[in-house]
Amino acid sequence: MRMVDVIEKKRAGQELTDHEIAFIIEGYTNDSIPDYQVSALLMAVYFQGMSARETAVLTQAMVDSGETIDLSSIHGHKVDKHSTGGVGDKISFIIGPLVASVGVPVAKMSGRGLGHTGGTIDKLESISGFNVEVSKEEFVRLVNENKLAVAGQTGNLAPADKKLYALRDVTATVDSIPLIAGSIMSKKIASGADSIVLDVKTGSGAFMKTLEESKKLAQEMVTIGTNLGRNTVAVISDMNQPLGYEIGNANEIREAVDVLRGKHVKDLRDLSLEIGSHMALLAGVFDSYEEAYEKLAANLDNGEAFNVMKTFVAAQGGDVSMVENTDLLPGAPSRIDVTSEASGYVTSIDAHSIGTAAMYLGAGRETKESKIKHGVGISLRKKIGDYVKAGEPLAVLHSETESQEDARRLVADAYSVGAESVPSPTLIYDVIR
Amino acid sequence: MRMVDVIEKKRAGQELTDHEIAFIIEGYTNDSIPDYQVSALLMAVYFQGMSARETAVLTQAMVDSGETIDLSSIHGHKVDKHSTGGVGDKISFIIGPLVASVGVPVAKMSGRGLGHTGGTIDKLESISGFNVEVSKEEFVRLVNENKLAVAGQTGNLAPADKKLYALRDVTATVDSIPLIAGSIMSKKIASGADSIVLDVKTGSGAFMKTLEESKKLAQEMVTIGTNLGRNTVAVISDMNQPLGYEIGNANEIREAVDVLRGKHVKDLRDLSLEIGSHMALLAGVFDSYEEAYEKLAANLDNGEAFNVMKTFVAAQGGDVSMVENTDLLPGAPSRIDVTSEASGYVTSIDAHSIGTAAMYLGAGRETKESKIKHGVGISLRKKIGDYVKAGEPLAVLHSETESQEDARRLVADAYSVGAESVPSPTLIYDVIR
Repeated sequence: MRMVDVIEKKRAGQELTDHEIAFIIEGYTNDSIPDYQVSALLMAVYFQGMSARETAVLTQAMVDSGETIDLSSIHGHKVDKHSTGGVGDKISFIIGPLVASVGVPVAKMSGRGLGHTGGTIDKLESISGFNVEVSKEEFVRLVNENKLAVAGQTGNLAPADKKLYALRDVTATVDSIPLIAGSIMSKKIASGADSIVLDVKTGSGAFMKTLEESKKLAQEMVTIGTNLGRNTVAVISDMNQPLGYEIGNANEIREAVDVLRGKHVKDLRDLSLEIGSHMALLAGVFDSYEEAYEKLAANLDNGEAFNVMKTFVAAQGGDVSMVENTDLLPGAPSRIDVTSEASGYVTSIDAHSIGTAAMYLGAGRETKESKIKHGVGISLRKKIGDYVKAGEPLAVLHSETESQEDARRLVADAYSVGAESVPSPTLIYDVIR
Repeated sequence: MRMVDVIEKKRAGQELTDHEIAFIIEGYTNDSIPDYQVSALLMAVYFQGMSARETAVLTQAMVDSGETIDLSSIHGHKVDKHSTGGVGDKISFIIGPLVASVGVPVAKMSGRGLGHTGGTIDKLESISGFNVEVSKEEFVRLVNENKLAVAGQTGNLAPADKKLYALRDVTATVDSIPLIAGSIMSKKIASGADSIVLDVKTGSGAFMKTLEESKKLAQEMVTIGTNLGRNTVAVISDMNQPLGYEIGNANEIREAVDVLRGKHVKDLRDLSLEIGSHMALLAGVFDSYEEAYEKLAANLDNGEAFNVMKTFVAAQGGDVSMVENTDLLPGAPSRIDVTSEASGYVTSIDAHSIGTAAMYLGAGRETKESKIKHGVGISLRKKIGDYVKAGEPLAVLHSETESQEDARRLVADAYSVGAESVPSPTLIYDVIR
C-alpha cells in the first residue's frame, strides 16, 4: 500500500478501508509515513470528511497506538465525563462527589495541560496536601472504598492522537469535526470508562461557536462511542459567558464546594444535575432521568455530596479544614475592582477574554514550565442580564501585584453594557444520545 | 507572518496576497517552511483553486527562486514551444528546423528526464557525434548563425518548482490545474523566451483526459503568460493514440526527417504546421496565420526545412549522413511483429501502454542511472480507423533481444479491433490565445 494512493482516494471523497486507516496510524506512529503526507491527508479529510465507520476505526486505531487503562478491578459501571472546555468550568468537582454519593464509581485520571487556568489536578492541589501521585493499586482501592479518586495521568495514552494533534495545530487542520471527535474519544476510550457523558460547550467562549457545529460534533462523538461499544450521551451547554462566577484554581474549588453545600449558583447547579443525572442513569443506578435528578438534587441539599467530597479529600491527603472553611484556601494579596463606566444591563461577556485575563494574573500555564499561582483569579460580580450602576464592580481581580492594567482592561472590555435588558442565555440546548 | 495562518486563509477559499505567496516560495526554497505545512497548503489549493493573479504571482516567485536564462544577445524574437507530453511526440525536431527556415530564432534548452523514451537531447544523440555540451557563447553564436541550436540545460532554473513538484508527487496534489500551469510556465519563463506556444495534449494518452480539463489548463497557462508579459498561444491537440507511427529515439528522429523531407505523415505534418505557424506569427515574421502556414508547408515540400536540419546537425558535430540516409541511424537486431488476432477496424490504441512497452524495450529511463538504448522502439503499422486482417501486424517491436513477451502483450492489448469502422480522431480541438 502506498500512502500517496490513500491520500488520493480520500481527496476524491472515497471512504478509506479499515486496513488503510490502520496503515496510516501505524505508519505515522512508527515514523514510516512522514508528516508531509499525513498533513496532506488531513487537509483532504478537512474537505471531504469521514464516514461514521471511518471515524470509529480511526479512533480505535489511535487507542491501539498506545497503552489503555484497565479499570476492570473497580466494582461497578464506570462512567467518565468530558468537557470540550470553557471558562469557569468547575463542574467536575461537583459532579464527582455528587454521582459518587449515589454509588457511581468515579475513577478520574487527569493531566495538567496548558490553559487559562490549571487543569483538574492543579485546581485540587489548591488544597494543602492533596496528592494525586497514587499507585494503580491505591487508586483502585480508593475508588472501591469511596467511589471517587483522582490520579495524575500516567501511561502513554493514544500517542498517535498526540502526534496528529501537534501536526494539525501547525497545518490549519484542527477544526475538522471528525478529527476533533476522534481525538477526544480516543483519549476517553483509552482511559477505560464503560460509559461516557460529554459536555459539549457552544457559544462565543467555546471552540464551537455555533449550535449547529456543536450538535455535529456531539453527534459525531456519540456515534463513535456507540460504534466502539460505549454508551455515550452528549449534553450541549452554553459558553456565551463563563460558567458560575469564579475563574482560577482555589476560587473554582471554593465555588464548587459552595454548590456541594447546596448553594444555588444557578448555571453551575443546573448543569451539574443535568450531567450527573445522565451519568447515574448510564451507570444503571436509577430507572429514570427524573428519579436520578431528584435524588442528586437532594444530595446537594442534604450534605451527602459534600460528605463524599470531604472523605475524598481526606483519603488523598488533603487538608479537609480547607474544604469545610474555604476561606482557608489560598488567596491573593491584592483585589482590583473592574468597574462599569455606564449604568445599564450586561448584554454579553466575552469568556475568552476573561480566560486570557486569568492567564495574565498567573492562574494558568502558558508553557509546560510555567508555575501555577493557586490563589489568583477573577470573581465575576455581574453576569448577562444583570443590572449594573456606573462605578459598580463588574468583576474583581485577585492578584499577587497591586497593578494589573492589562488584565483589568481585558475584563472591562469583555463586558458589554446596554440600555435594554436581555435574558440570561439558555443553559442546556440539547441532549444527544 | 505565520504559515499556519496562510494555510487557513487558502483553506477558507480566500485569495492570498502577493506578499503571502512570496513568503511561501521564499520560505520553502530556503527551508524555513517545512514540507508538512506546504503539503497542507497544496491540498487546500487543490480544493480551493487560485485566482489568475495568485497563479501569475506564484509562477513569477518560482522563476525568481533560481537563475533565469538571458537570451537577449540572440537577435530577433525568441519563441519557445512546450508540449504537455505524449507518446510518439517528435514534433520539436520538425518545428525547430521548420520555423528556423523562415528566420525565427529557436534557442532550445533541454533536459534528459525520465520517461517512456528519452528526452529531446537523448533522441538527438541517436545521431553520431551530436553534441549538446556547448558553452553559452557558442550557443548564442549558433542560434544567430543558423537560427537553431539545442543545448543541455544548465543552471538552476525555478528550483522552487522542482522542490514543490517532488512534494506534490508524493502527496496526491499533482493534478491541480493552477499548480500544473504554474509549474510548466515557471520553467518556460525562466528559459528566457519572448513568446510561448503550448501544445496541450488531450485524450486517453495525455495527462489531461478530457477536453474540458485540457482547455482549462491551456487557458490558465495562456493567462499566466499574458500576465507575465509573454505572448502565449495554446493549441489543444489529440493524444487518443500515439502521434505518427514511430516511438523510440532513433526512430522518432527518422520519422521527423521524413516529414522534413515532405512526407505526408498526416497528424505529424498537420500539427507541426499548426504549431509552427503560431510560432512564426508570434515572432512577427508573417502578417497572417494563413500566410505563415502556406510558407511553412512550402518549406517542408521544397527542402528548405530539411536543409536547416542538416546545417544544424553539422554545426553541433552530428553525422549528417545519418540524416541524409536515416537507415544509418541506430537500429535494433530483432524485429518482433505484434499481429492482430481478429480482422476489423482499429477502434482505439492506448498510447500509455505503447509508451510503457517502449520503456520495457529500453527506449526510456526509469531512474536517472538508466542507460537509453537509442535503436530500440516501436513502429506502429495501424492507427485508429485503419483496417487490419487477422494475422497482419499491428505494430513491430525493435528489440535488442529475440523475446519481448511483456512488451508484445502490452502492445497487443493496447489495440482494440472492432467490426465497425471508426473515424480517425480530430487532431486539433482548439486554439487558445
